[in-house]
Amino acid sequence: MVLSHTTHPGNIGAAARAMQTMGLRYLYLVNPRHFPDAQATAMAAGADDVLQHATVCGSVDEALQGVVFTVAMTARLRDISIEVKSPREAISQVLQEAVSHPVALLFGTEMSGLTNEEMGKAHLGVNIPTNPDFSSLNVAAAVQIMVYELALAAQSFAPAVCEIQPAPHERVEGLYAHLERTLIEIGFFTTQNPARLMQRLRRLFSRTRLEDEEINILRGILSVATAYNARLKKRYLEDHTDVQEH
Amino acid sequence: MVLSHTTHPGNIGAAARAMQTMGLRYLYLVNPRHFPDAQATAMAAGADDVLQHATVCGSVDEALQGVVFTVAMTARLRDISIEVKSPREAISQVLQEAVSHPVALLFGTEMSGLTNEEMGKAHLGVNIPTNPDFSSLNVAAAVQIMVYELALAAQSFAPAVCEIQPAPHERVEGLYAHLERTLIEIGFFTTQNPARLMQRLRRLFSRTRLEDEEINILRGILSVATAYNARLKKRYLEDHTDVQEH
Repeated sequence: MVLSHTTHPGNIGAAARAMQTMGLRYLYLVNPRHFPDAQATAMAAGADDVLQHATVCGSVDEALQGVVFTVAMTARLRDISIEVKSPREAISQVLQEAVSHPVALLFGTEMSGLTNEEMGKAHLGVNIPTNPDFSSLNVAAAVQIMVYELALAAQSFAPAVCEIQPAPHERVEGLYAHLERTLIEIGFFTTQNPARLMQRLRRLFSRTRLEDEEINILRGILSVATAYNARLKKRYLEDHTDVQEH
Repeated sequence: MVLSHTTHPGNIGAAARAMQTMGLRYLYLVNPRHFPDAQATAMAAGADDVLQHATVCGSVDEALQGVVFTVAMTARLRDISIEVKSPREAISQVLQEAVSHPVALLFGTEMSGLTNEEMGKAHLGVNIPTNPDFSSLNVAAAVQIMVYELALAAQSFAPAVCEIQPAPHERVEGLYAHLERTLIEIGFFTTQNPARLMQRLRRLFSRTRLEDEEINILRGILSVATAYNARLKKRYLEDHTDVQEH
């Protein structure tokens, strides 16, 4: 469970308690406003295994280090960047992924949830259906619902055979960064909105679930593309010795 | 939702918020330690429809006035007095009952849950499965899970045809009180533990789901039984004028 930028320490404690009652252990806190904190401890009500071993991180990327499948909680039923499912639909997929590699459930800050940038790091969105007139679900309550669904589904879970070996978070982020640098370098973004385009590309690749070897291939292509571009530029400069490089 | 003897007002607020996000409205508070309270209001985070209209009651019986089907939350997987189901198994039954009459979900106090006496007033127990090493589920978290399951199941619910018209809570309690008085009067309890026996009888009748007319019949039998007993006693006293009534 990854809680990003949690404002109220009581929610961290309540989330820890929810996790421990449902038998979950690993809590990651991305830049919590107050932690450790007496209110977190009070609301944990003895869920010390989870709370005391919570890992405080400086960024979502740090929290997702080694994670292969990330689920982002969202108040929106549709999201531009990823597919959105209900908790129950999502949980069987989460369990299937968890058979072979680390998975993360990512929860946003109290007031505004996850940012678009954070959502873009996930493979699947989950929306807990709420009353349209009052959809203000507390973040610890959302954690409670998800860990309850997880624990319940885990009881009767039978894993399917896994076909691919998707790469961990940091490898995929490495590709995205490489891709963005390359697109800038080849001048692609002059006619496109970079943020929006990168979001679309993330969406595409998060659906595909890239394997390690595939990332190597794609990054190889990117390297060659820039090298080709660099050669073109070099040749151009040689042919037009009167032109200043800008 | 009926919360009995809630200690921390924050839990009342969190429960109200959980209810309102899932579109539930009617909250009953049986002897809350602190209410209204600033902490309840803070934790409700704007769930004012539910919190401000919460009904404070002096007893569980008062809260269950008019209720026909009561579900009691229990940390025990088995219970002497009633059948115990998981939330998901219970919810379809709750929805089916709610088609034709008021239903209640009854939550106990933070430290110890519902008393045996309170459990005895319910038709069905619900146990939320937890980690056996840390089963300390917060009461507002339990409310959150139940209202989530309710809201979700309600979306796809199709009512079955109802065969009986069960009597409301206070009518059934009236029968139990009448039955207990009668059993005392006829001297039945001299060889039996009254509390335990009444619990067994409650269990029997809560399974049957008594209709109004059936309660009339049973109470009629009880009245006749005591009248018969009174006649016997009168005759005995007449035959033994030397014996003092005690």
